[in-house]
Amino acid sequence: MKLARCSDGGTPFWAVVDVARVALRPIAGGPADWGPALARGEGERALTFTGPERPLAGVRLLAPIEPTNRVVVAGANYVKHLKADFGMRSHSQPVAFLKAYGALIGAHDPIRYPPLTKELDHEVELVAVIGAEKIDRNDPLSSVLGYTVGNDVSARDLQRSGPPGVGMDLFAAKSQDRSTGLGPWIVTRDEFPDGSPVLRMTLKVNGETRQDASCGEMTWNVAELVRFVDERSSFAPGDVLFTGSPEGTGQGTGRFLNPGDVVEAEIEGIGTLRNVVTVIESA
Amino acid sequence: MKLARCSDGGTPFWAVVDVARVALRPIAGGPADWGPALARGEGERALTFTGPERPLAGVRLLAPIEPTNRVVVAGANYVKHLKADFGMRSHSQPVAFLKAYGALIGAHDPIRYPPLTKELDHEVELVAVIGAEKIDRNDPLSSVLGYTVGNDVSARDLQRSGPPGVGMDLFAAKSQDRSTGLGPWIVTRDEFPDGSPVLRMTLKVNGETRQDASCGEMTWNVAELVRFVDERSSFAPGDVLFTGSPEGTGQGTGRFLNPGDVVEAEIEGIGTLRNVVTVIESA
Repeated sequence: MKLARCSDGGTPFWAVVDVARVALRPIAGGPADWGPALARGEGERALTFTGPERPLAGVRLLAPIEPTNRVVVAGANYVKHLKADFGMRSHSQPVAFLKAYGALIGAHDPIRYPPLTKELDHEVELVAVIGAEKIDRNDPLSSVLGYTVGNDVSARDLQRSGPPGVGMDLFAAKSQDRSTGLGPWIVTRDEFPDGSPVLRMTLKVNGETRQDASCGEMTWNVAELVRFVDERSSFAPGDVLFTGSPEGTGQGTGRFLNPGDVVEAEIEGIGTLRNVVTVIESA
Repeated sequence: MKLARCSDGGTPFWAVVDVARVALRPIAGGPADWGPALARGEGERALTFTGPERPLAGVRLLAPIEPTNRVVVAGANYVKHLKADFGMRSHSQPVAFLKAYGALIGAHDPIRYPPLTKELDHEVELVAVIGAEKIDRNDPLSSVLGYTVGNDVSARDLQRSGPPGVGMDLFAAKSQDRSTGLGPWIVTRDEFPDGSPVLRMTLKVNGETRQDASCGEMTWNVAELVRFVDERSSFAPGDVLFTGSPEGTGQGTGRFLNPGDVVEAEIEGIGTLRNVVTVIESA
């Protein structure tokens, strides 16, 4: 099942998307209401449909997360990205941090080019969405509602601007207003084989492939990351977890994003984000 | 004016507190509704009272922030704390990061002792609350609704557990569930002299003073911090900004918090947090 958060100009609503029919059916509530039941595998009977089928083209796809939920990012989770792009060694445990909700954009929204940076970069990432009210730390994947696609757009020069001794300024680098693509929808966990997903992920800039790897190359898999984060700060239904990006970013190649660039982040079996880098004066 | 977020067992509500009368009057809405008008100085006429005066003792004081708002922390903002407690030099700009909403507790709630740490520490901090819908970057203080008290409780061993090259793990250190005191209420800006507040702040553990300094010792004042953060990630009405802690933390003295400790964080003209460190099994 594909769950999208949508806007038709009024209050945002959630819907089940039927890709073959290019249509959606609105449902009541949000992940706090139906996330736990869907994570348990109850399927459509956990949902209350609130209207007839509508054309998908009639709505804007928002980032599939409520404003009360939080955005957690696990970084440094692909060894090749660490080594090739940052010259860093692998290490003994994951690292996690929070991203501002206001940084998120939907599947087809413009990426705002932040005025403070000259090194805007892309990072395609598998994003896990939490469904359960409480994580089962013995079986963290059972708490996952599904997966979506993220593009953890990062201002690399700002990332390096943190004080010595404190480290990377991940807030300045990764919480810039309206920069991080998320979507186009959440694909529920039952549509994938058991275990941590092994899916091809690609990122293209103006049609040219810049990142091309498999989620299977993660150092810590989704279950390990969910447990690691939850032990430090508890998840709630609807929270999302970015799981790190593979090699091929501008940080390694020196090829950063520019206004006008068309950025496409795709993960097989989930979908594609297509966002155009845009100079927007006001935040 | 003192604005508190309260619970009497039902839906949380905001109220104006009359300390002399040990009473409160409930009001409609939250900072998104009346924050902009109060930041402009409109006073009580910006509020809609929804009920009669009630005894303050009849409610629990919650952290004065809505779940849709975000918690930003500016670190490394007191040179003596940096040098004495961390052995670090001063640096050229502030650093900011996000704290999870679930880390917050109210003025008299227990501090949950996080199971992963052996070095739980205290940090009394002045906390600015944003009122305006959009920050005036030429006069950032005009966008501030008021001030409250924070105790940015930190797990120091986890803070050091971040990967080399990435830096401090501020998420693990400072987003632990139900650990960070915030309150007891927001005191509106008109109750203080113009400019960045110069107020005595103290922190006591079991009655013994551990931190005793002035907000006037900040390296970057409130206006500079609000502008710095807003340039990187926009504020909304009701967002809060922790402004850093002075010297005297356990990081410098080696004296950390233990279960049973009574921790009192006070800032003159605002109020006192009194929280007991408690082992709580479940998050």
